[in-house]
Amino acid sequence: MARIIALQTHDIRFPTSKTLDGSDAMNPDPDYSASYVRLRTDAADGLEGHGFVFTIGRGNDVQVAALRALEGHLVGRDVAETLDDLGGVWRELVHDSQLRWLGPEKGIMHMAIGAAVNALWDLKAKRAGVPLWRLLSSLSPEEIVDLIDFRYLTDALTREDALALLRSAEPGRAERETRLLAQGYPAYTTTPGWLGYDDDKLAKLCREAIEQGFTHIKLKVGADLDDDLRRLRIARDICGPDIKIAVDANQRWDVAEAIRWTKALARFDIAWVEEPTSPDDVLAHAAIAKAVAPVPVATGEHIANRVVFKQLLQSGGLSVLQLDATRVAGVNENIAILLLAAKFGVPVCPHAGGVGLCEAVQHLAMFDFVAVSGSLDGRVIEFVDHLHEHFVTPVDVRGGRYLAPAAPGAGTEMYPTSIAEYTHA
Amino acid sequence: MARIIALQTHDIRFPTSKTLDGSDAMNPDPDYSASYVRLRTDAADGLEGHGFVFTIGRGNDVQVAALRALEGHLVGRDVAETLDDLGGVWRELVHDSQLRWLGPEKGIMHMAIGAAVNALWDLKAKRAGVPLWRLLSSLSPEEIVDLIDFRYLTDALTREDALALLRSAEPGRAERETRLLAQGYPAYTTTPGWLGYDDDKLAKLCREAIEQGFTHIKLKVGADLDDDLRRLRIARDICGPDIKIAVDANQRWDVAEAIRWTKALARFDIAWVEEPTSPDDVLAHAAIAKAVAPVPVATGEHIANRVVFKQLLQSGGLSVLQLDATRVAGVNENIAILLLAAKFGVPVCPHAGGVGLCEAVQHLAMFDFVAVSGSLDGRVIEFVDHLHEHFVTPVDVRGGRYLAPAAPGAGTEMYPTSIAEYTHA
Repeated sequence: MARIIALQTHDIRFPTSKTLDGSDAMNPDPDYSASYVRLRTDAADGLEGHGFVFTIGRGNDVQVAALRALEGHLVGRDVAETLDDLGGVWRELVHDSQLRWLGPEKGIMHMAIGAAVNALWDLKAKRAGVPLWRLLSSLSPEEIVDLIDFRYLTDALTREDALALLRSAEPGRAERETRLLAQGYPAYTTTPGWLGYDDDKLAKLCREAIEQGFTHIKLKVGADLDDDLRRLRIARDICGPDIKIAVDANQRWDVAEAIRWTKALARFDIAWVEEPTSPDDVLAHAAIAKAVAPVPVATGEHIANRVVFKQLLQSGGLSVLQLDATRVAGVNENIAILLLAAKFGVPVCPHAGGVGLCEAVQHLAMFDFVAVSGSLDGRVIEFVDHLHEHFVTPVDVRGGRYLAPAAPGAGTEMYPTSIAEYTHA
Repeated sequence: MARIIALQTHDIRFPTSKTLDGSDAMNPDPDYSASYVRLRTDAADGLEGHGFVFTIGRGNDVQVAALRALEGHLVGRDVAETLDDLGGVWRELVHDSQLRWLGPEKGIMHMAIGAAVNALWDLKAKRAGVPLWRLLSSLSPEEIVDLIDFRYLTDALTREDALALLRSAEPGRAERETRLLAQGYPAYTTTPGWLGYDDDKLAKLCREAIEQGFTHIKLKVGADLDDDLRRLRIARDICGPDIKIAVDANQRWDVAEAIRWTKALARFDIAWVEEPTSPDDVLAHAAIAKAVAPVPVATGEHIANRVVFKQLLQSGGLSVLQLDATRVAGVNENIAILLLAAKFGVPVCPHAGGVGLCEAVQHLAMFDFVAVSGSLDGRVIEFVDHLHEHFVTPVDVRGGRYLAPAAPGAGTEMYPTSIAEYTHA
């Protein structure tokens, strides 16, 4: 009978601020970082579960301290029992009455729980010998809803609603899995659009993105309207009318400014306006969405939990849902968010980039296609070509599409050499 | 020229779970705790600024780690310059682009900033030789609005709106200060109502509260409807029709359940229903408030920031605003929340209890009376008679009223002996 015998943590930081990769209107100089957790067991297979929270530098040590606070909940547990009841484990962690006070269900403590939950899913998928997307896609509708805590969701999505959605998608699972394996999942790229890049670099990277097969790119905006108009003109001139161009303001605006700015950018036929304002402001998103229609409003990478996503859907505040693999409490909460999106008929276009977010989130998008929404319409996973070399099973993006991963696990394991080299002193 | 020379932290925990003080439907066994911060300077006066985050036990170490992450922002600063620009310091801390990722503006990192900001205000008030409420009440409208970051607020409250509110309250300041010093500020007590107490203890404590002069009490509800009805009947029988009785569900319900349960309790003439559901759920609060009217909906102790308060006010989701001294980013953000409440004409009835929350929050309520809302109508500060003996300037509550504190500072300083005795091993 194998047990979890250790929860190891690592404070990993990459000095990305030196090159302004990842620079935007709110984050001028990020140092892409991971608060990393490894769950070790005494099973003979030697398999470990790996997970992490993506951060952008300072405070990564605080995030690691939050991971350590979960040790008492996890170390000593029976491995098989634990992995057989990940819905129960999720509830135990999220509803720890003392830790809950530190959110509740938001910020550092909630993200730490997400990393631990993701590490458990990584271990479960490795033990099953399959990639996470395939493991999730093999669960019955009942097994899937058992993973979800419906507290605070029932005014929009009940257990019965979720079961009905999953059952209606069940007959097409095999066909969609075949299609996914053959064709991959559409991607878009943010590589050209960082705010710290000059016009020549922007133009060059736009051309490269098109050559690589991308049909959708994204530009950071929100610092200066004239700059944004100039950069969008450069991008649109190179892309022509058929390549989609989204813009991302990274929470820079208040309501009136978001509406004015978005309307000014709309002449360049933008695919969506992302994070126009505070991620906590449901009513502001709803007001902006109404005023800038038909430009879609997108958000998600900083949405704290399923309760805020629920309201953004209820209010019409978003029409592109950008879930993030490490912002909420892991795979379980993200499945609840996928089901909410399906209930409201809104496409999920995951946030990625950072450290390992592409590797992790592709599994959720592919599971959504196979077993939840059953659709690729209007759906793309973000792609940024940074730091993949540090992962044992890096993403494989070709011709503007994510190829379905075949390796067992959740994609979240870094090389020991990378962990060692970039551990923060 | 004096400088801040040290940021010291302490992980302080009281073993309150042994007596079930503080037990409610979501928090069955809290260990009331403080993540405590002391700012020391090399000024000849020897004065220190003290602040803390209230937590309920596990994870207090993570909260302390977040306080430590602020050391680089504060240690080495010129004391006088820093205290002359607390609006600027607030912006620097809250908008640190890397730390911001860990919220943004919510949870552990945001509360740590609040404790540090409150410690700076404690130091400023001590240096001025006045209690914080009086210091704040002596600032000009322009000085007050300079403390506030209006980002994400302007669709409901602009700088000009805030100035107008403050100017209209200015002529009555002196008269209200005199009245406050003579009569104190109304309190209500939660001491009788903890869920872990049996019926006899509930009845005894209700009688004692009335004898002590309280005209308003609060009962915890939400675990079992029959129990709640029985306990409310006991309390109402003892209190008679003139004592107000509020109920507090501590986020236990979904929308439909909150409406059903509140309507069942309403026969006992409840003063408000508190925290009916998730503190993140603006739309749910609005739906509940509409359905249970005229019973007022109260919330605040877990509201992450001013942006969520703004929406609760915009949507009609609350009609009693319960700000908390240590949940948001300190005095500055709480002033923004007081101004929002005044703009919407909603009374502020602060959350208190815990460790030192009464000591801290009374200053904000008294400042609101003197210089912001100018009113005591429908306003009461929560009072719980726990742990005051550990504070250098404990609250003085007599005849159901908080007497205005006269000692310099923000009320947030604990005795060194208490810090030493209850520091977590």
